Amino acid sequence: MKNPEQTVSMPVVRRLPRYYRFLSDLKKNGIVRISSSELAARMRLTASQIRQDLNCFGGFGQQGYGYHVDQLAGEIERILYLDRKLPAIMVGVGNLGRALLGHLSGAKGIKLIGLFDKAPRPVTDIHTGLEVMGVGQLEDFCLENKPVVAILCIPGEHAQYIARQLAGYGIRGFWNFSNVDLQLPKEISVENVHLTDSILILGYKVNNRQEEMEESTGSADGEGHEQRPGE
Amino acid sequence: MKNPEQTVSMPVVRRLPRYYRFLSDLKKNGIVRISSSELAARMRLTASQIRQDLNCFGGFGQQGYGYHVDQLAGEIERILYLDRKLPAIMVGVGNLGRALLGHLSGAKGIKLIGLFDKAPRPVTDIHTGLEVMGVGQLEDFCLENKPVVAILCIPGEHAQYIARQLAGYGIRGFWNFSNVDLQLPKEISVENVHLTDSILILGYKVNNRQEEMEESTGSADGEGHEQRPGE
Repeated sequence: MKNPEQTVSMPVVRRLPRYYRFLSDLKKNGIVRISSSELAARMRLTASQIRQDLNCFGGFGQQGYGYHVDQLAGEIERILYLDRKLPAIMVGVGNLGRALLGHLSGAKGIKLIGLFDKAPRPVTDIHTGLEVMGVGQLEDFCLENKPVVAILCIPGEHAQYIARQLAGYGIRGFWNFSNVDLQLPKEISVENVHLTDSILILGYKVNNRQEEMEESTGSADGEGHEQRPGE
Repeated sequence: MKNPEQTVSMPVVRRLPRYYRFLSDLKKNGIVRISSSELAARMRLTASQIRQDLNCFGGFGQQGYGYHVDQLAGEIERILYLDRKLPAIMVGVGNLGRALLGHLSGAKGIKLIGLFDKAPRPVTDIHTGLEVMGVGQLEDFCLENKPVVAILCIPGEHAQYIARQLAGYGIRGFWNFSNVDLQLPKEISVENVHLTDSILILGYKVNNRQEEMEESTGSADGEGHEQRPGE
């Protein structure tokens, strides 16, 4: 039997973490309910976009009442499976890897169970309490401990090779920080964070806006700006 | 007068860094020309998607010849303004900031001219040769050196305040790694790297595929998988 959340489309799912962040902030500030227009103003969306998104999974909004913050946050947690913690490993514990460990220490949805690097170091990571093992230990570790997610913080030239190996060891999802697109079987999930692509896009936007402004002499708010939040 | 590239739509612009990466690899491997179907196979797109994207800015493909790799890469460089280097500052030089400095050392399109942290350190960054200054020096530095891009690697609770300040000092583009959505005037560009959102999406995909697979017992390649590369 299909659960109702499986009808939520991927574009809506991609927006859910942002809703979740805003709802968590509201909760923290003791706000119990919020109208779609208030939420829209905070998130810089239109009220109808919000109603459309949230209607996809049941629609908790009530005319004249708005959304129950806690209930809506709980529903998003359920859809994003945040009640589960996927066992994860990190491969490549250089500067970026270490920075991510700090970011991930309170993360929902995953639990780091192993850290690996080319050069193992008998150093315990302060966030996870884990030691950094050598990549030579990956196979045994995976077969024994069955991690399902791998965070790849290794140079692009090794990423494809290591990713295929890991897929063979049972990894089903990659958080990929290497600047290449991994070629993997279709049933394996990949979420790319292509930092270099991202900075090029920012550069384009800044340069292009400057040109627009120079052309329109004085009107900084010309049309043609894509809507920023929630991209 | 509008330049032809200004008709390139934002969704196409967002795909250009990926094309650029693949074309740069081809160049490195000495490949001079490539057909749309070959490029499609490498990039896991369809040939018609590629032709459609590249036609947006002139279409260098010739029937029976394909694309001239160097010429196409050059055209993408021009559209993305990679011949210019936007002066940039980094605010927050903790673990994540330091990791990014390594990634940015060879980056096109921007040039780091200043590093700032809550606690200034008389330590010279090995990648940029820059010292880390205190945030108290931001205003003077910006007025004097006119950076236009700021890389924000500071905690969410300070990001909004600092970003508004920086906008006042002339910053026109933010590469935002803090886990909040900045509220800024429309004419200011923001490119968010929401790491926490990204890992939640990966968790969703892995969990959801597992459920699909369990339901369809044996058919791992069920429909409903979104196309992975180029998301």
